[in-house]
Amino acid sequence: MNAVVDDATTRVNAWLRDFGAALERHDVEAAVSMFADECYWRDLVTFTWNIKTVEGRDAVRDMLAATLEHTRPSQWRLDGEAGEADGVSEGWLTFSTATAHGEGHIRLDRDGRCWTLLTAMTALRDFPEPAGKRRPMGAEHGIVRNRQTWLEAREEEQRRLGYEEQPYCVIVGGGQGGIGLGARLRRMGVPTIIVERNARPGDSWRKRYRSLCLHDPVWYDHLPYLPFPDHWPVFSPKDKIGDWLEMYTRVMELNYWHSTECRSAAYDEDAGEWVVHVEREGRPVTLRPRQLVLATGMSGMPNVPDFPGAADFRGEQCHSSRFTSGEAYADRQCVVVGANNSAHDISADLWENGARVTMVQRSSTHVVKSESLMTHALGPLYSQEAVDAGITTHRADMTFASIPFRIMPDFHIPVYERIAEEDAAFYRRLEEAGFTLDFGEDGSGLFMKYLRRASGYYIDVGASELIAQGEIGIRSGVTIERINERSVTLTDGSELPADLIVYATGYGSMNGWAAEIISQEVADRVGKCWGMGSDTRRDPGPWEGELRNMWKPTQQPALWFHGGNLHQSRHYSHYLALQLKARMEGIDTPVYGMPEVHHLS
Amino acid sequence: MNAVVDDATTRVNAWLRDFGAALERHDVEAAVSMFADECYWRDLVTFTWNIKTVEGRDAVRDMLAATLEHTRPSQWRLDGEAGEADGVSEGWLTFSTATAHGEGHIRLDRDGRCWTLLTAMTALRDFPEPAGKRRPMGAEHGIVRNRQTWLEAREEEQRRLGYEEQPYCVIVGGGQGGIGLGARLRRMGVPTIIVERNARPGDSWRKRYRSLCLHDPVWYDHLPYLPFPDHWPVFSPKDKIGDWLEMYTRVMELNYWHSTECRSAAYDEDAGEWVVHVEREGRPVTLRPRQLVLATGMSGMPNVPDFPGAADFRGEQCHSSRFTSGEAYADRQCVVVGANNSAHDISADLWENGARVTMVQRSSTHVVKSESLMTHALGPLYSQEAVDAGITTHRADMTFASIPFRIMPDFHIPVYERIAEEDAAFYRRLEEAGFTLDFGEDGSGLFMKYLRRASGYYIDVGASELIAQGEIGIRSGVTIERINERSVTLTDGSELPADLIVYATGYGSMNGWAAEIISQEVADRVGKCWGMGSDTRRDPGPWEGELRNMWKPTQQPALWFHGGNLHQSRHYSHYLALQLKARMEGIDTPVYGMPEVHHLS
Repeated sequence: MNAVVDDATTRVNAWLRDFGAALERHDVEAAVSMFADECYWRDLVTFTWNIKTVEGRDAVRDMLAATLEHTRPSQWRLDGEAGEADGVSEGWLTFSTATAHGEGHIRLDRDGRCWTLLTAMTALRDFPEPAGKRRPMGAEHGIVRNRQTWLEAREEEQRRLGYEEQPYCVIVGGGQGGIGLGARLRRMGVPTIIVERNARPGDSWRKRYRSLCLHDPVWYDHLPYLPFPDHWPVFSPKDKIGDWLEMYTRVMELNYWHSTECRSAAYDEDAGEWVVHVEREGRPVTLRPRQLVLATGMSGMPNVPDFPGAADFRGEQCHSSRFTSGEAYADRQCVVVGANNSAHDISADLWENGARVTMVQRSSTHVVKSESLMTHALGPLYSQEAVDAGITTHRADMTFASIPFRIMPDFHIPVYERIAEEDAAFYRRLEEAGFTLDFGEDGSGLFMKYLRRASGYYIDVGASELIAQGEIGIRSGVTIERINERSVTLTDGSELPADLIVYATGYGSMNGWAAEIISQEVADRVGKCWGMGSDTRRDPGPWEGELRNMWKPTQQPALWFHGGNLHQSRHYSHYLALQLKARMEGIDTPVYGMPEVHHLS
Repeated sequence: MNAVVDDATTRVNAWLRDFGAALERHDVEAAVSMFADECYWRDLVTFTWNIKTVEGRDAVRDMLAATLEHTRPSQWRLDGEAGEADGVSEGWLTFSTATAHGEGHIRLDRDGRCWTLLTAMTALRDFPEPAGKRRPMGAEHGIVRNRQTWLEAREEEQRRLGYEEQPYCVIVGGGQGGIGLGARLRRMGVPTIIVERNARPGDSWRKRYRSLCLHDPVWYDHLPYLPFPDHWPVFSPKDKIGDWLEMYTRVMELNYWHSTECRSAAYDEDAGEWVVHVEREGRPVTLRPRQLVLATGMSGMPNVPDFPGAADFRGEQCHSSRFTSGEAYADRQCVVVGANNSAHDISADLWENGARVTMVQRSSTHVVKSESLMTHALGPLYSQEAVDAGITTHRADMTFASIPFRIMPDFHIPVYERIAEEDAAFYRRLEEAGFTLDFGEDGSGLFMKYLRRASGYYIDVGASELIAQGEIGIRSGVTIERINERSVTLTDGSELPADLIVYATGYGSMNGWAAEIISQEVADRVGKCWGMGSDTRRDPGPWEGELRNMWKPTQQPALWFHGGNLHQSRHYSHYLALQLKARMEGIDTPVYGMPEVHHLS
């Protein structure tokens, strides 16, 4: 251990001691004075029963004044040693509240004042998860007459739940999001039914286009509790991840209603429960859960543009979500509208099958090579090197969570500057082929685009090379003016022959699912999902500081949205599950900082 | 770090340095002189291409003289710090050979000479497993025409293997042993088919009696590569472990031929391959693997005693392996012959269902309460406490493997003395009920009995209490003299009414399966499996030092036996898989110390 680390440890220890003391004597002013002028406190359901970042001392003061009394935080401790870089001391911490155990992270500036603070719930104090020392025995020793075996108990549960007994929670959507959340709720003892229209867990992957692989590497993709074995491929092929999800659903003993359509849901305010009409393998069933989670994918309904003449088109046309394989299109003329991930993957699949493909790029796209993303953006936290350096998935997730969204671009801009430099030749060739590039409005690259609008980028796994070589045609800065019987006319007046048109034109906001399943009124009440008000394209302000409506209370009581990539689903399902468990157990959960709704979709 | 540890580290480091130097200059005498008079070197396929313990300096000399030249060991290093207790210094080590990387463990006596040495193969030098940094990419970046997807490649493999292409290896038996070995071979790239008569992986568990749970705790039971999640019950119910095995088989992508009977196998010496006739879902298929593994359970064929009058019995009778549930026997008279694990479990199941049960105990039984076994025998290596103390499954397995069988009883006797003392009241009550107890001939308890004869004990999960209370009747020191139409007459002349007789009378040696599938001649050539010549009951001498025929070459070329409990299957499947992989890759594998066959069954 060196002197710098010693110093940092001393500083962080002292800060936590003084901060804890100020909070224990309810001295809000003393606590606030320990924050820097520029400061961020991100709370994941410990103080706020919300996912909330407060920015600046006034906001910290307001939050503490509102939450301190019932939160009763205590036992602030540094976990391990602190570190120091560029004058910033940082360390991991643990603490407790009246109802929960927490963990977090802190960064102190040169003056020893708090720049960033993360507080996150680990577990409910009175309801620890039944794992490790608390795991069930399985066999209860002693011989008892008429005892149910595990199988009999499980079969009885499957027979009764949803019929003779109501689940506390219904999750609509049994993709990786619903499954991971379902596993957490199962382990926490929250009776839950997952409703999924497909016949098998994993089908939402299996049914996509044949060449699909995960674009994120395996270290980023673990589900809760059961990590992939260490020979799992870096980029999971879709059918393999489908099998994993099916296996996971089974061994986690989820109550997974496959082949089940959710027809409608309405909240009965008097009863404090939802009335959810589903059709399970063709038979209507009415569920009455206390909580309803929409885990229908972080994308909402498909956006299908309404181009004039579409009805008269003699070829085939479909949204990207319906495209499965290019096999039928050898030597056929294909137009792909859009230039983001799906557009590239589908264009490549068509090209592999011998089709003649042109991509219609309506606006600029952020492209980053998968290898570069892996090395520079994800590598420090999610890679074999990170694993070998002892960075667990949990530690990586918490590190990621410790960076407030407001300043996250500052962390990303240098990474993408480096990528732009290293891959300069690649980008030049793409532009020479006519492709229009960007790195986000502020140069902050892929992940910020993902958080702001969940679109506008391609993680290059090879299609860019086909564009650079002219194998896949590119028409940039135009869109379709009208569709003819066997061609499309672009806004520059040119014409492209077309046997197939694929609309890789993205999705609406997740609250579109609420409109579909519940009502437009409820969809409007909760407002737009995703994005955080960055005032960049497709993410209008005002600034909200967190993703809208995700994993936290919404303006519609007992309605929740869950989704995101595998990393987000894994990590934030923990906080959503804790919120649901707390409500089921009757713990007081006063929500601080419920945001206003600024946008309907 | 304290001075004792420092000293131990210095001593072990010095020993390894000098030992390595002696081996590098092929100075066998110098190496031998570093061993104590009483010494044991256990080798798991690094020097011997065998599972072999040599005992005493002469045996070490002989082994080194025979193996040193082709093994060419080097790079002996202490791994971590050494420790010291009761004058014995011990530490973990790594080393390399001409063809492999190895790891091991050493204990030095007070004089700094070697008392025990374990050398174990970790990996083949030129064929590292494709895990961690070497895992496959999954998606190969770059777009290629007519590329197979993962699913297409997998489906083609399943279609061709066994028909258009022959597997290198066939495993007969798809229980946990065959499945775990299959996973290792899959990962090492050894084309393998597992042949299993049941319809689904896990059925060998599901089909047993309804109340069955694993008698070993979860920490002991992990399969390779994919540990149970940390909420898995301590004692897995049979159907739950069945589901786990089914899902494991799927996500490990094993070529598992369910509903397939192995009809016969014969070795074609000229071709150097087996001709294995199987019936797959009713259709005959001939497989021609280079290697054949019998993983049909560490037990052989059921032993069914031939009591006079059995043919005229008007009730029902079955071997314990056929018993599934006591449900039909409420108020019926049941006789269970035998007093080991199955006899107790079945008696308890019958009692739970309201039957009147009497156990016929022909000879004494070693009984140990599950809690006591967990606390005193397994706990230091396999328990939540061990996990929390940082003892990984691998470290626990290697620790266990580091104790030579000859001196293993010395490690176990004090444990069972303590258990006998702590549970004295329990044992007294059992004896007062008429039950006859033992702790093994030398007091070394359960695990030694398991290794010597794989029978003669009961891990008490409650049935003993029923015996102590007289709820389950016990007749000890007798057997059945003859069976009558509705009763049995015991050798003391007494009679027991009987509607059901269950023969919990154990199994023959595993080579009985070789007789069944291959020929009696081959069964006799390989001889008895299991046991090590301890010269105790059912394990006749001479002393062999290792389990007979398990996981190592046998007198029948290309025939292997795999089995054991979940711990053994997990750990020793690694060494068996390495032996098979080495042969497939054409690595020279001269076997040292192939044992003579002393017993036919």
